Amino acid sequence: MTTQEEFYREIASIPELDRNAEAEARRRLESLAKPPGSLGALEDIAAQLSAITGKMYPSVEKRCIAIFCSDNGVVAEGVASAPQSVTLAQTINFTRGLTGVAVLAKQYKADLKVVDMGINADLHLPGVINRKIRKSTHNIAHEPAMTRQEAVEAMRAGFDIARDCCDEGYTLVGTGEMGIGNTTTSSAVLSVLTGLPVDEVVGKGAGLDNESFKKKKEIIRRAIRSFEPDPDDAIDVVAKLGGFDIAAMAGFFLGAAAHRLPVVVDGFISIVSALVAARLNPLCKEYMIPSHCSAEPGYLQAAKELGLHPYLQLRMRLGEGSGCPLMFSIIDGACSIMKNMATFAEAEIDDGYLEKIRGDECFTVDHEKNE
Amino acid sequence: MTTQEEFYREIASIPELDRNAEAEARRRLESLAKPPGSLGALEDIAAQLSAITGKMYPSVEKRCIAIFCSDNGVVAEGVASAPQSVTLAQTINFTRGLTGVAVLAKQYKADLKVVDMGINADLHLPGVINRKIRKSTHNIAHEPAMTRQEAVEAMRAGFDIARDCCDEGYTLVGTGEMGIGNTTTSSAVLSVLTGLPVDEVVGKGAGLDNESFKKKKEIIRRAIRSFEPDPDDAIDVVAKLGGFDIAAMAGFFLGAAAHRLPVVVDGFISIVSALVAARLNPLCKEYMIPSHCSAEPGYLQAAKELGLHPYLQLRMRLGEGSGCPLMFSIIDGACSIMKNMATFAEAEIDDGYLEKIRGDECFTVDHEKNE
Repeated sequence: MTTQEEFYREIASIPELDRNAEAEARRRLESLAKPPGSLGALEDIAAQLSAITGKMYPSVEKRCIAIFCSDNGVVAEGVASAPQSVTLAQTINFTRGLTGVAVLAKQYKADLKVVDMGINADLHLPGVINRKIRKSTHNIAHEPAMTRQEAVEAMRAGFDIARDCCDEGYTLVGTGEMGIGNTTTSSAVLSVLTGLPVDEVVGKGAGLDNESFKKKKEIIRRAIRSFEPDPDDAIDVVAKLGGFDIAAMAGFFLGAAAHRLPVVVDGFISIVSALVAARLNPLCKEYMIPSHCSAEPGYLQAAKELGLHPYLQLRMRLGEGSGCPLMFSIIDGACSIMKNMATFAEAEIDDGYLEKIRGDECFTVDHEKNE
Repeated sequence: MTTQEEFYREIASIPELDRNAEAEARRRLESLAKPPGSLGALEDIAAQLSAITGKMYPSVEKRCIAIFCSDNGVVAEGVASAPQSVTLAQTINFTRGLTGVAVLAKQYKADLKVVDMGINADLHLPGVINRKIRKSTHNIAHEPAMTRQEAVEAMRAGFDIARDCCDEGYTLVGTGEMGIGNTTTSSAVLSVLTGLPVDEVVGKGAGLDNESFKKKKEIIRRAIRSFEPDPDDAIDVVAKLGGFDIAAMAGFFLGAAAHRLPVVVDGFISIVSALVAARLNPLCKEYMIPSHCSAEPGYLQAAKELGLHPYLQLRMRLGEGSGCPLMFSIIDGACSIMKNMATFAEAEIDDGYLEKIRGDECFTVDHEKNE
């Protein structure tokens, strides 16, 4: 069992970024043959990677997405459009390579780490890491989702998985989740952490009808009123309203930062977990790279709190970590700019080159002759 | 020489999209194991590719970016932050693989087709297709940029390059340009085509100081007043205010559509050219796939006119076609979803599978034992 003090010590260990490496990276970016800053976010990402890793040319080729799977007691209230059994089925399908994130991970050469945090089934699944806290959280319509100790254990599991990623040589990681009902839990956590009214942060998830949508909001409001989570104590908020997936992802963000791993944020549930992590140690924000802008209305509220601006506008709302592999591919571009673009000095065309061209017309296409 | 009538006939030949193939693609997308529509733009892109190509699983692996390079007489007025010689230098650097777009094209496995439309130099460049209309356009501070016939010839060149792409087996193309001063010409064209005030569509390009920025806007206003381009005649607008690059790119968009090639739009100059093309035959819009949202203020105005929503928010303003290879990579994701994701039927977990797991715990990680 993890004592809370142990965990607090561990998450306090996140190092400051390497500002010298970042400044050196910025100097190289300024020296490249282009108007200053004209590659926008690609330059920012390259500089951020240098700040995180301390390297001018960090490798991002070995990468994985950690998917935290867990069930939520609140689905008994009819707040989700899919049955609870889908959590188990899709967890199995991650390992079979059949889901959205599995297909995209393969396309963009990323591995998956699938973690059972609390699927509602008595199974040890092949290919799935078992860090189960318990079979499903409690139903927040009636009682807090978990104990504070359980929340810490779940965070600890996420932290450990990030450490494992580092130990296994991964240099770029991303977050994902599977848990029917987890837009309800995430919205509740977000509302408390930001102080925003429930109406502004709750969406229809995978596709609710109007009546269930109304009910979803009412249950969140009631849970917040009943359990009185302390907005200044992120662990209390997650314990009372969250899911084991949210807690584990928050721990994963903290663990990635503690191990100097750049970590890509997926959609709504990911970014709420990122906000939980940032409340526990704000330094971890510097290690986060946003990906797509989720279609869930709360996404942008959480992004704003974190100071993150999503790079992809794809109206996705699948979850699973599906935005991460797409963003890995954009990050590849940032790294190749840094490594392979010519500097102004290298790009200069000297008179000798032009003379050579003048005498050597064999490669050219002659427009007149083609007509 | 191309008669204008010939060209009009050619650009009228753009086929309607294959709505049956699109509907079939949508049916498959709906059958995949995910909440309906939850992959957002990835689904839209997959369906669009089917509508364009008539195929459920189109290949997008052989792709290239056509870069149209040309000089603009207006740079004599000091409206650009870089000297005119940069057009020639960077055109050469495209062929040497050194520029932003060249590096990104290599990263995402795209070829470049570099086309000299009017570089201000007496050179046939190795590796560059020569479709030069003339060395630089005229200075629009004093006279119209080109004759109507020259505009048609330049459009024709772009159209031909798209046909060549098709003939050479390319299945996905993108547009790029290089031409110092071309944010001035593009802004002028955009202002006339949309009727928007110059102030709303002109930006600082690669990085102008305030005085040059003021001058840039004043020159555009004066040129529009003096030459009175007809907003309902896109060729007249391009001839009087544009560049050979803009005309050629407009022709390329039309040519891509005529040959049923999906065509990716890069940044500001690309999207203004796309708008020119759409005014000549609105059907070509259906073949366009936007990429990133350029930092130039006019970009979103042109995108709105075209009904396009950029997918990447990277604050890029390099031009060259640099947004295209990044978007090619996202399109890869759309295609792999279509091809490799499981349907609901395939994703179903039957009881036999679960029984098998119950009896087979050898693959699992045991949490207790690890502690």
